[in-house]
Amino acid sequence: MALNRGTLETIKVNRVHGKIALEEAVGSSYFVAHGTYPPTPMILGMQGTLPPYNQSFLHDIDDRLDDIPKRLKSMGASGIEYAIVSLTCPGIEGVLNADEAVRLAKLTNDDIYEKYVKAHPTRFGFFACVPMQKPEEAAKELDRAVTVLGAKGVLINGFTNMDEKDLSKVQYLDDPRCEPFWKKSSELNVPLYLHPRIPPFGQQRIYEKYPNLSQAAYGFGVETAGHTLRIMCSGVFDRYPNVQLILGHCAESLPFLAHRIDHRMAIGEAGGNGPYKKSIMHYLQNNIIATLAGVRRESTMRNTIDEMGEARVLFSVDYPYESNEDAADWFDGMQLNENTRAAVARGNASKTFGLI
Amino acid sequence: MALNRGTLETIKVNRVHGKIALEEAVGSSYFVAHGTYPPTPMILGMQGTLPPYNQSFLHDIDDRLDDIPKRLKSMGASGIEYAIVSLTCPGIEGVLNADEAVRLAKLTNDDIYEKYVKAHPTRFGFFACVPMQKPEEAAKELDRAVTVLGAKGVLINGFTNMDEKDLSKVQYLDDPRCEPFWKKSSELNVPLYLHPRIPPFGQQRIYEKYPNLSQAAYGFGVETAGHTLRIMCSGVFDRYPNVQLILGHCAESLPFLAHRIDHRMAIGEAGGNGPYKKSIMHYLQNNIIATLAGVRRESTMRNTIDEMGEARVLFSVDYPYESNEDAADWFDGMQLNENTRAAVARGNASKTFGLI
Amino acid sequence: MALNRGTLETIKVNRVHGKIALEEAVGSSYFVAHGTYPPTPMILGMQGTLPPYNQSFLHDIDDRLDDIPKRLKSMGASGIEYAIVSLTCPGIEGVLNADEAVRLAKLTNDDIYEKYVKAHPTRFGFFACVPMQKPEEAAKELDRAVTVLGAKGVLINGFTNMDEKDLSKVQYLDDPRCEPFWKKSSELNVPLYLHPRIPPFGQQRIYEKYPNLSQAAYGFGVETAGHTLRIMCSGVFDRYPNVQLILGHCAESLPFLAHRIDHRMAIGEAGGNGPYKKSIMHYLQNNIIATLAGVRRESTMRNTIDEMGEARVLFSVDYPYESNEDAADWFDGMQLNENTRAAVARGNASKTFGLI
Amino acid sequence: MALNRGTLETIKVNRVHGKIALEEAVGSSYFVAHGTYPPTPMILGMQGTLPPYNQSFLHDIDDRLDDIPKRLKSMGASGIEYAIVSLTCPGIEGVLNADEAVRLAKLTNDDIYEKYVKAHPTRFGFFACVPMQKPEEAAKELDRAVTVLGAKGVLINGFTNMDEKDLSKVQYLDDPRCEPFWKKSSELNVPLYLHPRIPPFGQQRIYEKYPNLSQAAYGFGVETAGHTLRIMCSGVFDRYPNVQLILGHCAESLPFLAHRIDHRMAIGEAGGNGPYKKSIMHYLQNNIIATLAGVRRESTMRNTIDEMGEARVLFSVDYPYESNEDAADWFDGMQLNENTRAAVARGNASKTFGLI
Repeated sequence: MALNRGTLETIKVNRVHGKIALEEAVGSSYFVAHGTYPPTPMILGMQGTLPPYNQSFLHDIDDRLDDIPKRLKSMGASGIEYAIVSLTCPGIEGVLNADEAVRLAKLTNDDIYEKYVKAHPTRFGFFACVPMQKPEEAAKELDRAVTVLGAKGVLINGFTNMDEKDLSKVQYLDDPRCEPFWKKSSELNVPLYLHPRIPPFGQQRIYEKYPNLSQAAYGFGVETAGHTLRIMCSGVFDRYPNVQLILGHCAESLPFLAHRIDHRMAIGEAGGNGPYKKSIMHYLQNNIIATLAGVRRESTMRNTIDEMGEARVLFSVDYPYESNEDAADWFDGMQLNENTRAAVARGNASKTFGLI
Repeated sequence: MALNRGTLETIKVNRVHGKIALEEAVGSSYFVAHGTYPPTPMILGMQGTLPPYNQSFLHDIDDRLDDIPKRLKSMGASGIEYAIVSLTCPGIEGVLNADEAVRLAKLTNDDIYEKYVKAHPTRFGFFACVPMQKPEEAAKELDRAVTVLGAKGVLINGFTNMDEKDLSKVQYLDDPRCEPFWKKSSELNVPLYLHPRIPPFGQQRIYEKYPNLSQAAYGFGVETAGHTLRIMCSGVFDRYPNVQLILGHCAESLPFLAHRIDHRMAIGEAGGNGPYKKSIMHYLQNNIIATLAGVRRESTMRNTIDEMGEARVLFSVDYPYESNEDAADWFDGMQLNENTRAAVARGNASKTFGLI
Repeated sequence: MALNRGTLETIKVNRVHGKIALEEAVGSSYFVAHGTYPPTPMILGMQGTLPPYNQSFLHDIDDRLDDIPKRLKSMGASGIEYAIVSLTCPGIEGVLNADEAVRLAKLTNDDIYEKYVKAHPTRFGFFACVPMQKPEEAAKELDRAVTVLGAKGVLINGFTNMDEKDLSKVQYLDDPRCEPFWKKSSELNVPLYLHPRIPPFGQQRIYEKYPNLSQAAYGFGVETAGHTLRIMCSGVFDRYPNVQLILGHCAESLPFLAHRIDHRMAIGEAGGNGPYKKSIMHYLQNNIIATLAGVRRESTMRNTIDEMGEARVLFSVDYPYESNEDAADWFDGMQLNENTRAAVARGNASKTFGLI
Repeated sequence: MALNRGTLETIKVNRVHGKIALEEAVGSSYFVAHGTYPPTPMILGMQGTLPPYNQSFLHDIDDRLDDIPKRLKSMGASGIEYAIVSLTCPGIEGVLNADEAVRLAKLTNDDIYEKYVKAHPTRFGFFACVPMQKPEEAAKELDRAVTVLGAKGVLINGFTNMDEKDLSKVQYLDDPRCEPFWKKSSELNVPLYLHPRIPPFGQQRIYEKYPNLSQAAYGFGVETAGHTLRIMCSGVFDRYPNVQLILGHCAESLPFLAHRIDHRMAIGEAGGNGPYKKSIMHYLQNNIIATLAGVRRESTMRNTIDEMGEARVLFSVDYPYESNEDAADWFDGMQLNENTRAAVARGNASKTFGLI
């Protein structure tokens, strides 16, 4: 006989109440209309590559993205007191016409503010969306969203489409054109959540027979980690050392990799890999905030805390793509000391966003 | 005043002798001649994308790849008793003509066997190279290398070029054409070291201004992790459950990511991501062996041991691309219990390769 | 609002079947008769210091110690396939008359063998008890128990009473009189489980108002760790390097402390702390096996594995003083890699005791 | 051949400057005179049990306890910017005459204030000593030391002798007589460092042949952990929830043990182990601060951080009993993320003691 998994047992866990979550997706009136609303295949920027997700999953997402009572009920059952919501992927970044992006960003911010924050001020905050197609306009809209609507920061879904005809023309945040946006972020001193977006280029090709690999299962993380490394190497964090970038999924494996990345960058010619002044590890520990969105594994969380310190790791879910209840069962049931749990569940977010 | 790094201090560490290393690159008579020999830019399969590594690094590699006395001296100073060497990247996999690949693989295996194993049987073993351009031939050469020359297994540098004219035509190991090779590997019951190769496709494009990111610093790991995931999803490990794949760099971040990959693969339609039967985590824990090659960070190693168990993690260096002495200083100086250290440094390799 | 624990939630865990447990207490026909049977206050060696345990706990123990069908049912529900049972504390060690101890040890070993091992050979093994009051006799009885009855080793409940009149006259296992016993243990190559016993001396006095502190909650561990340190310092493991001592409760905090103990022993005059040749850490990593008996905390287990290696840590429960089901819920539900889980749950015990 | 330790290698580590240390012993003019000054055998309360420490160690301590230039030089070489010093063990607690204790405490506080704090305000703070023989006087002296001399808190060397004739008459801090002292500590909101003292009772007897075991190597930790558990069980932290107790040596193994202690306390009759309201783990996470004094082992530190959170673990040395340089080599060389390192090295102490 050998060791094997058998019967399913029921165990008990005490729910932790008062948690704060910050990678929480919502739709908006405007994005349904424009057809870029998941879970229906997103026309713009997605190139029809959405993998064959199972239908019950898609319908459940569809059902939950805009259902506020259901969301609040699920938050209640999961001990999530407060959620910072944001427009779901690909959002504004996938709008091909730049002027339309400017217009839709404003309308969407107003819409989310009204439905969530104004209606439920003790339960919801929001991250603004901004039209990075026109970085000066993005800076302006960020200013308005933060100062007028009380946005807690901004969320950007990876790269931005920059050409109505050529979907391969995209802009990453290390692009020099983005400077006005970074300047404004630094002035306002609000964080930027960098959310994954389906990778645009050849990367999917290597996963052709296993489509999920190029999406949430693996490719999203690579896309976002790569994007973050570009930002780091571009020197943004040297020019604006107070800027904080929030990454989901325990910082997309950068805690595991940062030491080696620095080590191997060092074999390049000085300056040959961008004008950055410090180290990838330095930026990771000073300019990155990691959330647990999408992670339910202790060793991954420990590696993240080990490399970033417990003050830079924050609970999150990624509702409705992930289940609030499942995330809470995992997080609340872990044998974690209560000081670290309180910091990760609530205290770090309270400090970062000036919540009470 | 604040905390800061200042003066450089000298501390002492006792060298651990008797270590075994297994991602250790060598050249061969044949590969110099064919111009695919690093560190000079590799014509075949590299597409001129070698980043601007600094010249002293390149010259040092050039100097060390074939210098056996220097290698032995460095091994001695580092406490490495035994190294399993293998032809450096891209090797046979980058040979565009299939028949030439078949011919060169045999010559190279004989050459490495003569120079290293026969000449220094107590210090060197080797991983064979095989012409995956013709998988039946690869199976044959693997058989010969193992049974006649005593090869400890095989090392493959990622994808294989399959067309003399079109460099984008490549074959990954999940390709159905590779079946004869897997069948033979399983029969011979020897492991396959899957070594990174410079990614061929669009992936580099997103790192254009930071070339090292697409190479050893980050892209290599993504390429190899992606390749491994393809192999897993293809069901190879269901068909040949005894096959062991060795990955460097603490299994290329898969310990950090495997739980989430499984979680997100589950939202796909059943079977929509390949015919695999078990889970990515299962394969990681049953069919993958991780080496420390290129890793000098405790938390990364701990995450790897946490997810794979200490019996599946093996010391290695990646000499001469990495320094034996530096790797040993790190490994020998860590506050690791001596049982785990002995397993990782020597015991696990002894068992895997039937060494005494 | 702040973070707080609220509603009780139910989560699911898959039971792991096939576990082996080895700190599992039973009574015997002879020990009931002699009144040293817990949970009724043990006359001999306990000095009336049993703290006011709650009555339902005591009755439950009383009920379970000798109820084999209930034990098997509980093992089944907990995924414990095989248990190595042993006479409950204080057992033979608390028998004041030496000849009576010799007589009772034999009878008890025969009794336990008959009821457990012979009757249920696939479910039970046993650790012999031995009369350390007469170490030559202990050696003889160990030999008989191992070679005739198939005992898997021996379990000793701490110090042994050595005088019918003076309860303070006790013998620890570092006593030179014990040499014949150690010699025989080494020859037979079977492990010794060192089980806590209620500390005999002044130690309880400092906990007078908090009696449990001097018992299972804290004092037991101190007593057993101190006893183990005495054995280490006495040089037993230098004279018999193959001897293996099994300690419960994650080796009674020695993994946490060993480094510091060695560090501070070094300020003594050479040889002033016993004739031992190596280090406390060396013995911990070479002569100690830790069980999880009584531990249900991941960080404690991790510290133990970190300092001893995963091959020296074994699952156990301490039934009926602990609940099989609760121990299994914790162990089976932990996010531990399955290789380490299999080693700790079964593989390490299989190797140590030659089970199949 | 097998794995073995051989040649001694030299590696480099960057010194971290700006550290704060807080278990740093000094002598005083008055304690030399009274003969309770280590390392010469301390008459009072030590009962001649000082183990045979080696002479060079004792002379070195003797040399360093009062040599301020040597101390400052060593702090400089070790990157320790600021030390909170305190009278070395057994100090006031070992003064048998209560009135003399009252008198000496004042003189000593003035003396240490003058020599260290007033003379070197940027390098030294101090913990007051107080005459617990008369708790009301202790409260008064604590008030004076904090409000007049700027003491950062108080340090107490374990139990206090309470009878000139009977050395076994001692008072632990859970004694109801200590209430005025706890009340004052809570009002002043300054922490209490609980320092080990040589155990007074029978405990040493079990280590008779291995004297160091009953001292710094093991017994000190047991004594101080036991003392802390008494304080916890007495309900002090329920009555004064803001009181913070500082423990050296990674909280004397309580992080490893707290979960099990709570688990086994639960089998007692309700209230049978003291009137405490919460749990040992709760007090550990809310009322205990751990220092690294005397610890140079990563896994021990990790277990402590795992159970207490990184905000409750503080660097310290225990100079001159430990080497500043060795402690710094270990701490500065560890592969710890720089945020956690900064918190442990300096930030947590800055917050706790209101330093800039």
